[in-house]
Amino acid sequence: MTDLPKKHLFDIPEGMIYLDGNSLGPLPKGAVERATKVLTEEWGKELIRAWNTADWMALPQKVGDRIATLIGAAPGSVATGDTLSIKVYQALAAALKMRPERRVILSDNGNFPSDLYMAQGLISTIGKDYELRTVAPEEVAGAITEEVAVVMLTEVDYRSGRRHDMRALTAAAHQAGAVMLWDLAHSAGALPVDLTAANAEFAVGCSYKYLNGGPGAPAFIYARPDILQQVEPALSGWLGHEAPFAMEPGYRPAMTTERLRVGTPPIVQLSILDAALDIWDDVDMAQLRAASMALCETFIAEVERRCPELTLASPRDAEQRGSQVSFAFAEGYPVMQALIDRGAIGDFRAPNILRFGFTPLYIDQQDVIRAAEILQEVMSSACWKDAKYQVRGRVT
Amino acid sequence: MTDLPKKHLFDIPEGMIYLDGNSLGPLPKGAVERATKVLTEEWGKELIRAWNTADWMALPQKVGDRIATLIGAAPGSVATGDTLSIKVYQALAAALKMRPERRVILSDNGNFPSDLYMAQGLISTIGKDYELRTVAPEEVAGAITEEVAVVMLTEVDYRSGRRHDMRALTAAAHQAGAVMLWDLAHSAGALPVDLTAANAEFAVGCSYKYLNGGPGAPAFIYARPDILQQVEPALSGWLGHEAPFAMEPGYRPAMTTERLRVGTPPIVQLSILDAALDIWDDVDMAQLRAASMALCETFIAEVERRCPELTLASPRDAEQRGSQVSFAFAEGYPVMQALIDRGAIGDFRAPNILRFGFTPLYIDQQDVIRAAEILQEVMSSACWKDAKYQVRGRVT
Repeated sequence: MTDLPKKHLFDIPEGMIYLDGNSLGPLPKGAVERATKVLTEEWGKELIRAWNTADWMALPQKVGDRIATLIGAAPGSVATGDTLSIKVYQALAAALKMRPERRVILSDNGNFPSDLYMAQGLISTIGKDYELRTVAPEEVAGAITEEVAVVMLTEVDYRSGRRHDMRALTAAAHQAGAVMLWDLAHSAGALPVDLTAANAEFAVGCSYKYLNGGPGAPAFIYARPDILQQVEPALSGWLGHEAPFAMEPGYRPAMTTERLRVGTPPIVQLSILDAALDIWDDVDMAQLRAASMALCETFIAEVERRCPELTLASPRDAEQRGSQVSFAFAEGYPVMQALIDRGAIGDFRAPNILRFGFTPLYIDQQDVIRAAEILQEVMSSACWKDAKYQVRGRVT
Repeated sequence: MTDLPKKHLFDIPEGMIYLDGNSLGPLPKGAVERATKVLTEEWGKELIRAWNTADWMALPQKVGDRIATLIGAAPGSVATGDTLSIKVYQALAAALKMRPERRVILSDNGNFPSDLYMAQGLISTIGKDYELRTVAPEEVAGAITEEVAVVMLTEVDYRSGRRHDMRALTAAAHQAGAVMLWDLAHSAGALPVDLTAANAEFAVGCSYKYLNGGPGAPAFIYARPDILQQVEPALSGWLGHEAPFAMEPGYRPAMTTERLRVGTPPIVQLSILDAALDIWDDVDMAQLRAASMALCETFIAEVERRCPELTLASPRDAEQRGSQVSFAFAEGYPVMQALIDRGAIGDFRAPNILRFGFTPLYIDQQDVIRAAEILQEVMSSACWKDAKYQVRGRVT
């Protein structure tokens, strides 16, 4: 049984209520020690030999296996490295090759823009008559026709927290003969995921949100073991080769999930992520999900009672939500700046969304109530109208 | 005027002669302090706000500008992130779009395999009648016909150290109407590069070799400023968008070199690279080149005198070489293991190459002579025949 929260394992500034772990998780204490070790002991003392002596070569797969346990994937089925956008491209390109007679990539219009952009870039690279078709999230199921080569969806909507039904939509995709690709950016570490049960061909995700891997931590990609040999890598880099150090002139994909690796892995960031994953060893995902739902329910109730100006922009049914709650308010941007200024850190997503992530590893009920109180103070005092909160940074 | 070497700025184990900086540069002392700062001060205390308060958003471009000064590129013309293989794909895909009527990617058969593999993956993704044509390095100039869309070459050969003539081959490519792409993996930080004078459209490179950015440090890509607006990004991720935080449904490439960025940048590794680049601030590349040539000349003379069993596998003319020297020996693998065991670190590249990188930042004439002495001891004692040196690791 997990003991939640695990605040003592994180370095979170005194007095800060951090409700933005769905954007960038906080610093795990073990990360600093691990980074120091990889720099001074491994790189510093072993230099090039560390690829063997510190087993850097095996680190991408080791980290992949640790993520696999959190998303219901078999050992050996998850590769790590690159960024989520790159992993989307890899999965989409492979999926299109698996359905050569079909021409449609289906997604929803609330999907994270980079997923849509990568699809657009892939289509432009192929240069044939492919189409990225987007429909409203609730219309996806009805839009999976036999024209569709691949259905690409993010399980939890980055703005609203609305959650797709992974099993049902995967089944619908398969019913129509399409390949299924799930983006788990807001799922991995946020709620129980069972890729094996869902039976999706591909999944991708990032590790700097709920997995707390740090800014720019590497992404991951899952390919269902039984289809791996059909996966033709578009980004056929040397570390996806069956024998990278044979230096052969022709690419031969690895027989394992390593075929989804590309170039030299980011060892420092992978090591930090590996340390961050230590925290998950004894976490029961069902218990985490129950705690997350309770935190979200409290926040919704408290904010609706205290701040009638705000409109819930997430599904009211906890089962239909991920681990975040969003409220809409036309002047959401300065409101969020005022909140951040008062130590309650959420974020803003255009055009009008105040977004709050609830992460039971380091957030408890007291934090949630205090955050709602601060939001009430900001709204009732109208302090957000202060000119200093209107200035827009590049990231909010 | 540079004061070389700058050994005091690196943490290199006592007694080690490190001749593998062409594979992984050693740890700059400033890297540890910077990593600690980015973890504990920026990530730890600022969390999501660090994208603004620690200016993480600007870091990829800042680092790109610092690399630009080392390769003769204009400020703003170099983007950083991802891996070298990914950057090869981006450049090739963009180059092919610039010559839609042509179908040949020309390279040499000594090019680093991943560059060739990425070209193969791109061609397979496009799925049309493209061809990757490779010829012997010395036959490249004659093979640049009007069928060629893009000439892709690595300036310095990773095995032999043989150096292509960047200006002449770029001119030949342009003469035939082809786009030129240079891989500077073994050039950046190794010798003077003048991309502006060479007039190449694209260049790519990595930062963990001569630039000492650490294992898996981010790559870079250059696009010539006057053709930037013709560069259509295949890997069209959100951070290459003109307005990433507007969350628009359609991709619009940034008007700047940022269009060659893809996903969320690896801030920890970029910060370490930024610290590593501090060392270069007062380095005169002409002086570095002269020192590098002198180190290589000494090594060749000493090894040829002491180890007649070894055959020089690099050009004898220093002008025709990068900053490494290779010797061929059928049993090169165990010889290199025995050398490493005695503190002289080079590496082995299949099938029979003993490779030694000479990096005047932290290697001097005494080191070179001592390395030759150790090599002589290994060869004359035949200690490399010991069974323990025959076992092959995954990386050598």
